[in-house]
Amino acid sequence: MRVSFEQLQSEIKRVFVKYGLSEEKAETCARIHAESTYDGIYSHGVNRVSRFADYLQKGWVDADADPVIEKDCGAIRVVNGNLGPGVLNALFGADQAMALADRYGIGLVGIKNTTHWMRGGTYGKYVAEKGYVGIMWTNTEACMPPWGARECRLGNIPFVMACPGDADGPVMLLDMAMSQYAYGKLQVTRLAGKKLPFPGGFDKDGNVTDDPGAIEESMRIMPMGYWKGSSFAFMLDILGSLLSDGVGAVDMNAATKGSCGGCSQIMIVIDPKKTMDGQRMNETIRRAVEYVKGATPAEHSSGIHVPGEGCKRFHREHDEQGIFVDDAVWEEILGL
Amino acid sequence: MRVSFEQLQSEIKRVFVKYGLSEEKAETCARIHAESTYDGIYSHGVNRVSRFADYLQKGWVDADADPVIEKDCGAIRVVNGNLGPGVLNALFGADQAMALADRYGIGLVGIKNTTHWMRGGTYGKYVAEKGYVGIMWTNTEACMPPWGARECRLGNIPFVMACPGDADGPVMLLDMAMSQYAYGKLQVTRLAGKKLPFPGGFDKDGNVTDDPGAIEESMRIMPMGYWKGSSFAFMLDILGSLLSDGVGAVDMNAATKGSCGGCSQIMIVIDPKKTMDGQRMNETIRRAVEYVKGATPAEHSSGIHVPGEGCKRFHREHDEQGIFVDDAVWEEILGL
Repeated sequence: MRVSFEQLQSEIKRVFVKYGLSEEKAETCARIHAESTYDGIYSHGVNRVSRFADYLQKGWVDADADPVIEKDCGAIRVVNGNLGPGVLNALFGADQAMALADRYGIGLVGIKNTTHWMRGGTYGKYVAEKGYVGIMWTNTEACMPPWGARECRLGNIPFVMACPGDADGPVMLLDMAMSQYAYGKLQVTRLAGKKLPFPGGFDKDGNVTDDPGAIEESMRIMPMGYWKGSSFAFMLDILGSLLSDGVGAVDMNAATKGSCGGCSQIMIVIDPKKTMDGQRMNETIRRAVEYVKGATPAEHSSGIHVPGEGCKRFHREHDEQGIFVDDAVWEEILGL
Repeated sequence: MRVSFEQLQSEIKRVFVKYGLSEEKAETCARIHAESTYDGIYSHGVNRVSRFADYLQKGWVDADADPVIEKDCGAIRVVNGNLGPGVLNALFGADQAMALADRYGIGLVGIKNTTHWMRGGTYGKYVAEKGYVGIMWTNTEACMPPWGARECRLGNIPFVMACPGDADGPVMLLDMAMSQYAYGKLQVTRLAGKKLPFPGGFDKDGNVTDDPGAIEESMRIMPMGYWKGSSFAFMLDILGSLLSDGVGAVDMNAATKGSCGGCSQIMIVIDPKKTMDGQRMNETIRRAVEYVKGATPAEHSSGIHVPGEGCKRFHREHDEQGIFVDDAVWEEILGL
């Protein structure tokens, strides 16, 4: 199924209004879902619309709640998200963090008691397109076993780093979750009858496996870099709580509040013009990109990519053919 | 070989004074090398003494240089390391960043034109033991191929996150390099006649391998999490340059300036007491640690660890038996 950006946004907006968001809030949330879809991040764009509507209906997301600044000290602000729409809370937080960066060079906003922000990269991209550097993450409920354990007690936390791109390219955008593979990737690979390119988890007996179905069954996904991703996820969880006065995985329960219900997000935003002249910055980024992309390719290389570049392929395809939406997903949205 | 902390520090100090450091500078540098060794990080402690002496002799590290604050705007400072001893520059930067955090809640110090800081965890631990949160990294010369390339064009960048620990434990300390395995680990595994537990790189023909010797030969170590670690390393390299007004891997050449000669380090330091009450913070950390460590162990588990905990085992052993130093390493130091 192919749709235009306007079709996609207006249909998503219709659903969100129906489930209780104001016109204005629905407009913004729908735009973010449509933009993620346009960028090729279907999983956190159009594919999350019905789940978000479900959360609104269950009251896990409060359609009427607005974020409130609870602490305001120097270059740090703590925001209470009041369980309002995660996308709106996160945009509010990013705006606050940019205002702090304007004033102090760097700002940190900790948002507590918020809900799923959908695609983490949205907020990195948002600040980078305005010329800032962003370092951001959200903690989540436990959904990944710590290294050495079989039980899920770590969040599969997305970590985002972003900065402006070189002159004619998209912004530099790293948006990576702590697991080596997302459950979506496991499903797609299983349906295609394939194995994962690298071990992605453990089967129910604790054997390392590249069989996606065995991992879906055991729910024992593997952290990226094994013990490294496990420790990284743990630090992000704790710092998520500390720096927002909020809670971590131990106090989140997806069964009663939805995925990321009550979570914390940290946004560190920096104005790089305070440290480096704008022209030198452009030149530095351009040369770094050229250097990395100019490396001799490996034998079986499918290309050398810089973070954020992936969206270009989707933009081209979506501009030419319309935005791809899975038939079943579109039917479901139309039926809401 | 087993030595006392005092023996270790005084012998290292003797060498550093001989190679041109002042009494005071040598004292501090020797203490940091000894502390890393006591923590069990031999590779960046006692095992780096002779290389640092060599760099002093070659003039790659300027024994007399002191760091200078070049930009001071709000909560950001840019420091020129003037190619002085990396350890002293980094401690200076950490002190500056803590002073900024005292004033603004958060501070960023970018150190440019500096030299190898030895163990990145030193500075995370340094600020966390004083009650701060630290996020830090250094860029490095190219020594790891980007994903999809055979040629080394990425730094193997260490990324550090630290915060206070629970009441009676060490600080929480993540200190991870971007490669899945360090060259030291490859060597030790090869000498033991073993394979790596997981693929660690490519052989000279581009095949994924767990044979440490084949990776040492090809110099094609693998980023942790494959494409994820590759993108992460690239972002850290660029942000390292931008936020310090310095240079990245493209402009570093280990053959003419030594490893990390002219590199940039970023230190973001936050005062978590600005966001969370001290007692609640202790409780939050304690519960998070208990939760993760209380997970049901996996079938072949060697324990579930939280970041920073590894040093406890070394402290016990070193307190009981003296600090371990490789015989050949100690002989070399005595001979300097």
